[in-house]
Amino acid sequence: MSVLVLGSIAIDSIKTQLEEHREVLGGSASYASISASFFTPVKLVGIVGSDFPREHIELFQSRGIGLDGLQVADGKTFRWSCEYEWDMNRRKTLSTELNVFENFTPKLPDSYKTTPIILLGNISPVLQNHVLEQLEDPRFIVADTMDLWITTTRPALLDLLKRVDLLVLNDSEARQLTEEASLIKAGRNILRLGPKFVAIKKGEHGCLLLSPDRFFSCGAFPLEDIRDPTGAGDAFAGGFTGYLASLQKEAFEFADLKKALVYGSLLASFCVESFSLDRIKSLSRKELDDRYKFFRLMSHFEVLE
Amino acid sequence: MSVLVLGSIAIDSIKTQLEEHREVLGGSASYASISASFFTPVKLVGIVGSDFPREHIELFQSRGIGLDGLQVADGKTFRWSCEYEWDMNRRKTLSTELNVFENFTPKLPDSYKTTPIILLGNISPVLQNHVLEQLEDPRFIVADTMDLWITTTRPALLDLLKRVDLLVLNDSEARQLTEEASLIKAGRNILRLGPKFVAIKKGEHGCLLLSPDRFFSCGAFPLEDIRDPTGAGDAFAGGFTGYLASLQKEAFEFADLKKALVYGSLLASFCVESFSLDRIKSLSRKELDDRYKFFRLMSHFEVLE
Repeated sequence: MSVLVLGSIAIDSIKTQLEEHREVLGGSASYASISASFFTPVKLVGIVGSDFPREHIELFQSRGIGLDGLQVADGKTFRWSCEYEWDMNRRKTLSTELNVFENFTPKLPDSYKTTPIILLGNISPVLQNHVLEQLEDPRFIVADTMDLWITTTRPALLDLLKRVDLLVLNDSEARQLTEEASLIKAGRNILRLGPKFVAIKKGEHGCLLLSPDRFFSCGAFPLEDIRDPTGAGDAFAGGFTGYLASLQKEAFEFADLKKALVYGSLLASFCVESFSLDRIKSLSRKELDDRYKFFRLMSHFEVLE
Repeated sequence: MSVLVLGSIAIDSIKTQLEEHREVLGGSASYASISASFFTPVKLVGIVGSDFPREHIELFQSRGIGLDGLQVADGKTFRWSCEYEWDMNRRKTLSTELNVFENFTPKLPDSYKTTPIILLGNISPVLQNHVLEQLEDPRFIVADTMDLWITTTRPALLDLLKRVDLLVLNDSEARQLTEEASLIKAGRNILRLGPKFVAIKKGEHGCLLLSPDRFFSCGAFPLEDIRDPTGAGDAFAGGFTGYLASLQKEAFEFADLKKALVYGSLLASFCVESFSLDRIKSLSRKELDDRYKFFRLMSHFEVLE
């Protein structure tokens, strides 16, 4: 079952306290679509400029990602640069050049309109809503968001929440959206805004999944060294949604979502091991499945080993 | 199989931003022994003053805790007071009056010397070592420690580490002891100092268990409200050690320690729901087992539910 992935496609320049990588592939849709492609066919919806390197197009193609919904506009591709502190939970945006992204209006090719599983990657909720309006009877809709949209486009975000099945956001955003310090209460309040499920990412502390009557806590895969946290949340959302789609089901049970959350966490764990998509690009399905087995061993406490 | 619990017994005065409770039962041995008593017979080793309230003695007795190793000295019981900030991970010690605890030299009754399972609660490593010297062939030794001992009595602590099976400490202490930022690396370095296992507590983010070739990550039980974090680490150590002892085994496998870690976490989760030992005192074995089952459901992602 295929997944439609909407989001940004960017050229990033990333600085950590140890390394600097300039003009590398970034953007929520890049991380999410390639992560989802481990599990299922993906249809990308996004925009790039005429300067977008051919090698990135070839990367998408090599992963079997459909590009009929990729607009190539005159001008430069969206560019973003940031610098991480020693504590990589903290970063400073150095520059944001929207370029062709500024006037992006996602228009779905007819062949995309019946896609059953939808990932609305981190992008303005106005554009996320605009994509929803073009879809015919989607089966399951995942939406990602960020602090910027909670502050600047709250009405559109609240409108979106009424229409999606699962919202993904991080812990501080969940608190910000609900003005509630307890993460459990914040999660429950988000469910009252519309989504059937909410996934709250806690960075190096794992993530939570809530439904009105169920709860799942997923640890983070333990990494000794993190080189670049950029895109971890997008890889998480892509891995989650891709795995879910691969189940080929009419409806999803909580147990399905739990496993999807684990696969999302694992894609994020590979993502941060290197800059840009370098690690995920070279990842094999066997490496992913091996890490899944190890993760199960390290998380379960009542199984034969 | 019985557990010997060594530690402090105190009268605490605890202030949070919402409540204040004065002159309540505290101390590492109080929290640990009562937590362990849910699983197995406990022998307490500690000291109190002649002012120690009769009701606390009766509480220990009602839990079947052996008091032959409890010294009652002339003078006042150890007193401690602290204040928590809104962020309850942060607290300020307001006063510490050692009183009779200042000259405490633990002397084990003969009947205690063959106790198979030992919990050296958070107390000076000099006293922890002193107790080890009086034991005859203990089967499994758990030691808890804190930042103060890492700073002030490091040689005695390093000596202790060569003699214990499992060290319990929190994340910042693990980093402090090893001067290593990565928690996984810190844990591995601690294992090189002697213990076969190390349990690293991460507060509201759960805990980790490491052996030289194994790893387990345990989430924290999700609580909507935390009233008083005091004693959570001691309840964890007591629950852990008590459960282990209840298995009645000659040697413990990693799978045993994983389950013990879960029971320790659950005792800690009950502990923080109220001040002092109020919640643990009223806890039933059925409530504990129900929370265990819920915790398994929320942590496992590949089981029939």
